[in-house]
Amino acid sequence: MLRSNTCGELRLTDIDKNVILSGWVQRVRDMGNMLWIDLRDRYGITQLMLEENRNTPETLALARTLGREFVVQVHGTVVERVSKNDKIPTGAIEIKVETLTVMNAAKLPPFKIEDETDGGDDIRMKYRYLDLRRNVVRQNLQLRHKMAQQTRAYMDAQDFIEVETPVLIKSTPEGARDFVVPSRMNPGEFYALPQSPQTFKQLLMVSGFDKYYQIVKCFRDEDLRADRQPEFTQIDCEMSFVEQEDVLTMFEGLIRHLFKNVKDIDLPPVPRMTYAEAARRYGSDKPDTRFGMEFCYLKSPEKTQNNLVHGKNFGLFEEAEMVVGICAKNCADYTRKQMDELTEWLKRPQIGAKALIYARYNADGTLKSSVDKFYSEEDLKNWANEMEAAPGDLMLILAGETNKVRKQLSELRLEMGNRLGLRKPDDFKALWVLDFPLLEYSPDDDRWFAMHHPFTSPKPEDIALLTTDLGAVRANAYDMVINGTEVGGGSVRIFQRPLQQQMFEILGFSAQEAKAQFGFLMDAFEYGAPPHAGIAFGFDRLCSIFGGADSIRDYIAFPKNNSGRDVMIDGPSVIDQKQLDELKIKTVL
Amino acid sequence: MLRSNTCGELRLTDIDKNVILSGWVQRVRDMGNMLWIDLRDRYGITQLMLEENRNTPETLALARTLGREFVVQVHGTVVERVSKNDKIPTGAIEIKVETLTVMNAAKLPPFKIEDETDGGDDIRMKYRYLDLRRNVVRQNLQLRHKMAQQTRAYMDAQDFIEVETPVLIKSTPEGARDFVVPSRMNPGEFYALPQSPQTFKQLLMVSGFDKYYQIVKCFRDEDLRADRQPEFTQIDCEMSFVEQEDVLTMFEGLIRHLFKNVKDIDLPPVPRMTYAEAARRYGSDKPDTRFGMEFCYLKSPEKTQNNLVHGKNFGLFEEAEMVVGICAKNCADYTRKQMDELTEWLKRPQIGAKALIYARYNADGTLKSSVDKFYSEEDLKNWANEMEAAPGDLMLILAGETNKVRKQLSELRLEMGNRLGLRKPDDFKALWVLDFPLLEYSPDDDRWFAMHHPFTSPKPEDIALLTTDLGAVRANAYDMVINGTEVGGGSVRIFQRPLQQQMFEILGFSAQEAKAQFGFLMDAFEYGAPPHAGIAFGFDRLCSIFGGADSIRDYIAFPKNNSGRDVMIDGPSVIDQKQLDELKIKTVL
Repeated sequence: MLRSNTCGELRLTDIDKNVILSGWVQRVRDMGNMLWIDLRDRYGITQLMLEENRNTPETLALARTLGREFVVQVHGTVVERVSKNDKIPTGAIEIKVETLTVMNAAKLPPFKIEDETDGGDDIRMKYRYLDLRRNVVRQNLQLRHKMAQQTRAYMDAQDFIEVETPVLIKSTPEGARDFVVPSRMNPGEFYALPQSPQTFKQLLMVSGFDKYYQIVKCFRDEDLRADRQPEFTQIDCEMSFVEQEDVLTMFEGLIRHLFKNVKDIDLPPVPRMTYAEAARRYGSDKPDTRFGMEFCYLKSPEKTQNNLVHGKNFGLFEEAEMVVGICAKNCADYTRKQMDELTEWLKRPQIGAKALIYARYNADGTLKSSVDKFYSEEDLKNWANEMEAAPGDLMLILAGETNKVRKQLSELRLEMGNRLGLRKPDDFKALWVLDFPLLEYSPDDDRWFAMHHPFTSPKPEDIALLTTDLGAVRANAYDMVINGTEVGGGSVRIFQRPLQQQMFEILGFSAQEAKAQFGFLMDAFEYGAPPHAGIAFGFDRLCSIFGGADSIRDYIAFPKNNSGRDVMIDGPSVIDQKQLDELKIKTVL
Repeated sequence: MLRSNTCGELRLTDIDKNVILSGWVQRVRDMGNMLWIDLRDRYGITQLMLEENRNTPETLALARTLGREFVVQVHGTVVERVSKNDKIPTGAIEIKVETLTVMNAAKLPPFKIEDETDGGDDIRMKYRYLDLRRNVVRQNLQLRHKMAQQTRAYMDAQDFIEVETPVLIKSTPEGARDFVVPSRMNPGEFYALPQSPQTFKQLLMVSGFDKYYQIVKCFRDEDLRADRQPEFTQIDCEMSFVEQEDVLTMFEGLIRHLFKNVKDIDLPPVPRMTYAEAARRYGSDKPDTRFGMEFCYLKSPEKTQNNLVHGKNFGLFEEAEMVVGICAKNCADYTRKQMDELTEWLKRPQIGAKALIYARYNADGTLKSSVDKFYSEEDLKNWANEMEAAPGDLMLILAGETNKVRKQLSELRLEMGNRLGLRKPDDFKALWVLDFPLLEYSPDDDRWFAMHHPFTSPKPEDIALLTTDLGAVRANAYDMVINGTEVGGGSVRIFQRPLQQQMFEILGFSAQEAKAQFGFLMDAFEYGAPPHAGIAFGFDRLCSIFGGADSIRDYIAFPKNNSGRDVMIDGPSVIDQKQLDELKIKTVL
């Protein structure tokens, strides 16, 4: 037996017990005649005590050689501490050490194994096994474990069956880029790693599994941004004999269960908003609803609304498709410098705004704008009324093409939310966004793409539009958004062959291509496919939001960097010529 | 709402309720003035009833068009049945149908969706989504779900943390053949899919995770036998600060928990046997201990034992390293034809025995052998004593080289066990096999291989043998065997760099190769690695044993065939030239 107890469990009630502890040396304090060691493991820290006259000179000498992160084992007795530490659960006791054994020495770690470390990103990723030793990092992964446990608890209670779908599947040209795996037994052919188990879960519905779920790895060979990983994890779900409402209810239940059981937060019922409304009010299909600062239209593309900027010869506004602003509370005293900085921020290529118009509603009740040349104080007063601005507030206004301006103002809104401290990491606001467009047109490719995926069902009342106005067809598709991040999305699926075939045609598949890629699914629809719908949550992302963090990397044990490399194991790597020969492939560099 | 209830839940207590049911048409019985439909879903079957005068002619006509596997929805009222069916839980009620809607028609399935189907393997795999509709197949996957649930329940209760390890890792030449994935972002380099998360779980121990588990997909590109799949699932576990005994106790606990909670079987404490003893008594490192029929040595390679065959000029026995037999109870009356057939069976290349010697202990007390020319009845009597044969029994004897003969007689023992009905699928006998050799010599490669893997620790008392007698070094490695099948295996790991380095040298790695392949692990050992040990269970296999089946395929939702193909989706497949170009590879056929 290498230990009788962990370093987190001994208490005053254990006094006089003979114990064996094993763990890592966190700290050694040598007072000459007494020597203390903080021994650490996953469960906590226990103080060890050695004394000049009681312990042998050999033991004391050995203790004095201990460095940080040495792995040691001690036999000893639990005694009450003279000066207790009420900051840790074991702080009332210490171990009177009898024997001390070094199980493994440790070199000096390349960075501090502490919550506030001195290690940069690169060194911590190379020595990820040491980074994972830090409490903050391990706690992230423990949160992830708890999220998975609670997800399963909910899904199991709701009678979902967990089914493992295959990882070695077939490549499909639609959607993102696949990772592929050459098949040695089928030379010249390749498996693909799944971007999601979409078709398999639909087939499970055809099979009558009724309710399926899986926490499953998925893969996408896309260029990586800070927050994307080539392999990621989904909570993947599908249900039969359901309508959109059933899915929303079921998975609102999941999210509320997770908040309750992981964070002890009673999330209120999740509000709902259509895609169109989200675009109008927030300029985004994933609005952060922790704060207001909603869009106010001074000139709207919808004709029925007032136009408060017309006829004053201000070219930008006259030519703009829309003029829209947000009201930043209590920001009227922003300095010229601050305004210039904000304008520069908006003009960066990532945002691409041409100009920022602003109007201050001064605390004294006067109004002043960057377009005083064109608009009177009376005009500004009308704007203020429309934007519900009060004395002390700052109105920020953009103008131009609808889609561009909405995106730009959405970014500005989020930025102002950050600056004003309105996006609190411990405040959680969930939202369903509904009625997404079924299709979006790509001018570059001169074709329509499925906004969600080719298996998403149009709203029954919009099916007629499939032959007349593709852009107007709404899908029975839904996203769950938390704090401005899309954490999950899904749809009611097509379950009838003719509609699926029509959809493939719209997406530009030839009959032959559709059959080669998805023939098995369309065949399956002919053998009694039930109506079905589903959803998938990005598990890494969900964990990071629950943890209040921005990056998903902190919630993945062994993440890859932006070049798709695991710098710890130094992979990917070149492989033996023999392997290439067996696979009948060669590299062409 | 597409249904108010499932097809498995309505009872007499629901009489008079208005309900909506959806499901598949299992059967239609048309009695002219009355018509019954068995409606099926995952939860059960409910009988629907239509009547000539009550239902409209249109509804009745529609009902008469229904074929098997049509998907329909009905509105109706729960009524008590006149003639009840006590074989199904819903058998006391039926639904008086008001409206009937066909949600999806179905073509005639290519085979019967019943427990006893008329579909062959190939057609059932091509239409796997229909095969999965059969109760027996779905129940296998529901058993698998329950196995996963209960595994997690146990591991969670024991404080293990579930951690996901990466799927895109680095190829290593040691062990089985890797599947590889070309990296687009790192041209010329490849990821490998993990054969197991071995190094990652060891690093998690270095990180102080203390107890890790994961139910995880692993991959091996080996030629497939009936019972191997290129992707398979493991229950993967690792623990720190433990000795072998701790691991055995913990995972004996898991297996007993699974038997209790999945099958309601109280498995007794799991017996233990060394590798050497298993080889001696059963000729196998995974003996089926549901039945005896143990090996009896008439001539043993161990000098201390009796030699009951010596000095009678029977060349085969004189030259043999060992002469060993089993006693088949009550088989003395096997006919000449049966004996010939058994001999032929043994001589097949898969087994490769040269000859089968047998001796009958007839019911009348006389003894008769196939080697009467050399051995007297007195000799045979001595054999019978040694083999504890009684009148009526048949002694089956093989002779030759130790390793070959043990394997052959082990096969014969299992075959006789089958023939005598001693290997009952609902009888479960578990066994720990311990003290495996650390290394095995491959004459073909003229080198030593790790029997378990290169990270397995030699027994401390055998470490000195590493420089003198490699074949004699025993490992702290253990297998769990159930009913003659290895369901799991593991080892205490090396956790000190010098020993790991020595191991790599023994396995023929140059210092450079060892560093390139496993440098990160050896580095990790220098920063405070704790003693650790682990185990992995083959989850597919474990499920099939719990299900009492021979093949793991029945417990995998979408298995591949012996050529590694998924015949349903028809993958792997050729991919676009554009994909190959982006990956900077080409096929060389």
